[in-house]
Amino acid sequence: MIQTISIVGAGKVATHLSKRLQACGLHIRQIYSRQLEDAHELAKAVNAQGINRWADLQFSGLDLLIIAVKDQAIPEVAQHLSALPSHATLIVHTSGSSPLSWLNTLPRRGIFYPLQSFSPGREPDFNQIPICVEATNPADQKLLLELGQRISQKVQITSEADRRSLHLAAIFVNNFVNHLYQIAAEILAERQLPFDLLLPLIQETAAKIQGHDPVEMQTGPALRGDRATIERHLDMLEEHPEWRELYGVFTALIRA
Amino acid sequence: MIQTISIVGAGKVATHLSKRLQACGLHIRQIYSRQLEDAHELAKAVNAQGINRWADLQFSGLDLLIIAVKDQAIPEVAQHLSALPSHATLIVHTSGSSPLSWLNTLPRRGIFYPLQSFSPGREPDFNQIPICVEATNPADQKLLLELGQRISQKVQITSEADRRSLHLAAIFVNNFVNHLYQIAAEILAERQLPFDLLLPLIQETAAKIQGHDPVEMQTGPALRGDRATIERHLDMLEEHPEWRELYGVFTALIRA
Repeated sequence: MIQTISIVGAGKVATHLSKRLQACGLHIRQIYSRQLEDAHELAKAVNAQGINRWADLQFSGLDLLIIAVKDQAIPEVAQHLSALPSHATLIVHTSGSSPLSWLNTLPRRGIFYPLQSFSPGREPDFNQIPICVEATNPADQKLLLELGQRISQKVQITSEADRRSLHLAAIFVNNFVNHLYQIAAEILAERQLPFDLLLPLIQETAAKIQGHDPVEMQTGPALRGDRATIERHLDMLEEHPEWRELYGVFTALIRA
Repeated sequence: MIQTISIVGAGKVATHLSKRLQACGLHIRQIYSRQLEDAHELAKAVNAQGINRWADLQFSGLDLLIIAVKDQAIPEVAQHLSALPSHATLIVHTSGSSPLSWLNTLPRRGIFYPLQSFSPGREPDFNQIPICVEATNPADQKLLLELGQRISQKVQITSEADRRSLHLAAIFVNNFVNHLYQIAAEILAERQLPFDLLLPLIQETAAKIQGHDPVEMQTGPALRGDRATIERHLDMLEEHPEWRELYGVFTALIRA
């Protein structure tokens, strides 16, 4: 069973994950960050040691090292780690889109990917966050599965292809949806209308697919084929060609 | 004060609105629908009379007639109504995108637009639904404002231009967002993954802008400028050119 964990990274994923792991009874030993100050700050919060030198990482008795850094930085971190006497510690990364092969130089490797978008100052309901695990050998997979189950009710073993599809789908429902919120806010701001007016509609839109197929929940001028309204909207968007393009593509897709 | 109301229409808006009005102590007198069966069904639910002939509409003592039909049908309904002895009853429509001028042949006219997306079988929290009111004379505007305040905490007088912008913005955060949910569901279905896995992320994405600017809440490969991930995603979408186009437009907008 995994009991002692160290973390590489001190950003959003590292912060939320290490706090959750500690709250669920795991021991966080060290937090590594290039910025010692960041390492110390997070380390303090989870009763760990903050470090900024690779040579200070202690592998003896360590059950798991979690790499929670920007995707692009994973290969470089793996390179540093493979130069250390890691005592065959299990090492995972937390990225939805990065391949497991980026850790190929490490003897025991895996994935521990929480499917959520973390923001500073917000505590998500970790129990409901799906955690996708993967490992190169069955014993490590079992260890990661057990660890996942200690912090969430929704853990599953996913292949790399599954995880990539989940991550891509997550971009659509998180980043792109959030950008639609932003466009709407800007449309209202042009008339000095508060974005707050849309919050009940945004909440309801997200709530009503919990238990329903999105196809069944669709409404609006595109679905009704209300050409007059669609034309009027396209006219209103004349000064924003990218929003107009989005409007056209969505309308065609909803109609199809 | 408005006390007695009749409704033209028996669809989603007519149903939710008449039920809410009745629950708040208003008297619903008649429900008109071209389909007598639909009129009867809704009439029964709100203790009213169901009719399907224009001549059966009773205007004497009626404080308000609400036209809650498809946008395209409003001009035709207005034509029928202006041929009747309406005793100068206040008549409103409930459409976000239709002009007040569509009721120009009626002596007292206005708008009563609830900014929400209604679906069968779901009871939205009406108290939180913004209601946009407008009327051609101040006395009627006051009547509509008071009526709105009886069924919601968020009533406001909006100009036609305001209402149109609200409606356009609503299309982005409701119809288009819902379509992104649908695309994500299809991406997962291609790998036999359940859509349920995305529900916590969808909830969190909607929840975290309640009180925050969407710009501040943005994350992901587009914002980070993570070209490798973006290229991989575009490759994954090769068989879905419209989704690929959306991915490209959103990525460019988020980067900007």
